[in-house]
Amino acid sequence: MKRRIRLRVAYDGTNYHGWQIQNNAVSVEGTLLKALQELLQEDIELIGASRTDAGVHAMGNVAVFDTAARIPTEKIAYALNARLPEDIVVQSGEEVPDDFHPRYASSRKTYEYRILNTKFPDPILRKYMHFYYGKLDVESMKEAAVCIVGEHDFASFCAAGAQVQTTVRRVYGLDIRKEKDVITLSICGNGFLYNMVRIIAGTLIEVGSGKIPPGQMQAIIDGCDRSLAGATAPARGLHLIKIEYER
Amino acid sequence: MKRRIRLRVAYDGTNYHGWQIQNNAVSVEGTLLKALQELLQEDIELIGASRTDAGVHAMGNVAVFDTAARIPTEKIAYALNARLPEDIVVQSGEEVPDDFHPRYASSRKTYEYRILNTKFPDPILRKYMHFYYGKLDVESMKEAAVCIVGEHDFASFCAAGAQVQTTVRRVYGLDIRKEKDVITLSICGNGFLYNMVRIIAGTLIEVGSGKIPPGQMQAIIDGCDRSLAGATAPARGLHLIKIEYER
Repeated sequence: MKRRIRLRVAYDGTNYHGWQIQNNAVSVEGTLLKALQELLQEDIELIGASRTDAGVHAMGNVAVFDTAARIPTEKIAYALNARLPEDIVVQSGEEVPDDFHPRYASSRKTYEYRILNTKFPDPILRKYMHFYYGKLDVESMKEAAVCIVGEHDFASFCAAGAQVQTTVRRVYGLDIRKEKDVITLSICGNGFLYNMVRIIAGTLIEVGSGKIPPGQMQAIIDGCDRSLAGATAPARGLHLIKIEYER
Repeated sequence: MKRRIRLRVAYDGTNYHGWQIQNNAVSVEGTLLKALQELLQEDIELIGASRTDAGVHAMGNVAVFDTAARIPTEKIAYALNARLPEDIVVQSGEEVPDDFHPRYASSRKTYEYRILNTKFPDPILRKYMHFYYGKLDVESMKEAAVCIVGEHDFASFCAAGAQVQTTVRRVYGLDIRKEKDVITLSICGNGFLYNMVRIIAGTLIEVGSGKIPPGQMQAIIDGCDRSLAGATAPARGLHLIKIEYER
C-alpha cells in the first residue's frame, strides 16, 4: 500500500547547482533523493514544485514522492534531516492524496528578493542578499511595481531561450518594503517564468537608481521583449518563501 | 610623518580560527594584516580591540595601525576591501590621535547572542544563530537577566583557566527580545571576560528551558564559581556589534 508524501524543503542554495538533478553537479533534488532512498530502501521518484536556479535559496520548496515503507509520516522530516547536510532541512512531511502533483495543482508561490543597500557589504549577509551601494528611490520602485500586478504577458521578464507554452502569468501582489538598510521585494503569483523574479528585481533596481523612469514600466510589459527590461539580478538575493495549494 | 588609523571591521567568523594571529591557522587579524601590508608596502603592527573566538562574528570590531603611506584616509576601506576575501569587510577608516589604544581606551562594547527557537533549523541562518528547538520562557530569561546588569565579579561566567587581573566587569545593559522565532540577547558592558557572553547566554537558555530557576541567578553570580553557571553557548550565535569610545 503506497502513500504519497509531501515535503516542505528549505535550503541554502549557495553550494548547489540548483534544484534539478543532473549529471556531474551537486543538486538539491539529487541530495534529497539520495537521503530518501537510504532512509526508505526503495527506488523513489521525487517530483519537485519549483526548479530553483543555482544559488537561489528556499524556505518552502515542495516535493512529493510515493512510498510503501512503514515509517510514520510525522517522523519522515526528522529521519531525513539526520541524513541530509546542514544546508538542506526538511521542514515538514505530510500525507496528500495519490493524485496530488506539486506542479499541476493550482498554487500560489511567494518569492522574496532581498537587497542590502549600504555603503559596504555585510559579510554575514553576502550570500543571502544582493549588495547594492547606490541610492535607491523606494517610492519610484513602488510606483513601477503597481503595473506588474495582475494577469499579463510577461515575455519581457522571461530569460531568452526559455521554452514555455505561454508567457502569461498572474501576479497576485508585489510589495516593496524597506527596513533599515534592507529592501525586500515580496512577490506572489500563480507561477513564474524562467528568471522572471530576478528580471523584475533587476528592472526595479534600475527604476530605483533612476536609470528607468517608473512610468516606463507599463511600456516594458506591453513590449513583450526581453531587451526592454533591466538586467537579471543575482541569484543570491532570491528566496522561494512558500508555495500554498488549494485544498 | 606617521598617522594612526582606526578601522571598523566586520567579518563572518565561520572560516576563521578567531581574531588573533597564530601559526598554522587562518585568523581575521592575519588576513587583514596581509592585506594592509600589501596595500601600504610597510611593516604594519595591528592592534585589535577584541580577540573574538573561532566562529564568532563581528559587525564592528576595531583595529588600529600606524602608517607613513600617503593613501588618503577615506580611501583605505575601499582599497583594503579590494584585497580582502568577501567574508571580511572594512566598514570605515578614520584618523585617531597617536596615543589612542583600542584596548586601553575606555569603551562600551555591545554583543548580541542570537537564538533560533523553531522546530527545525533554518539552513540560511545555521552559521549565524544558535538553533534551540525546546520551549524557552522569555519572561523567565528577562527576570534572571536583571541581576547581571551592574558592576559584579563575573568569575562564574569566565572560562576556566583564563588569566586576568580581575574578574570584575560592569554590564550597562542586557536586553532580551523575541521577534518571530528569533530570541536576541543584547549585552553592553565596559569589557567582557573570556567566554563571558557565551556563558551568560548558555545560563539564560537553561533558565528559559526551566532547568535553572530565574531566582537562582543572583546566587550563581555571588558564588564566583564557573561550575554554578550553565554551559557555554556555541560561538556561531555570537556577534560583536559595536565598540564605542569616549571622545
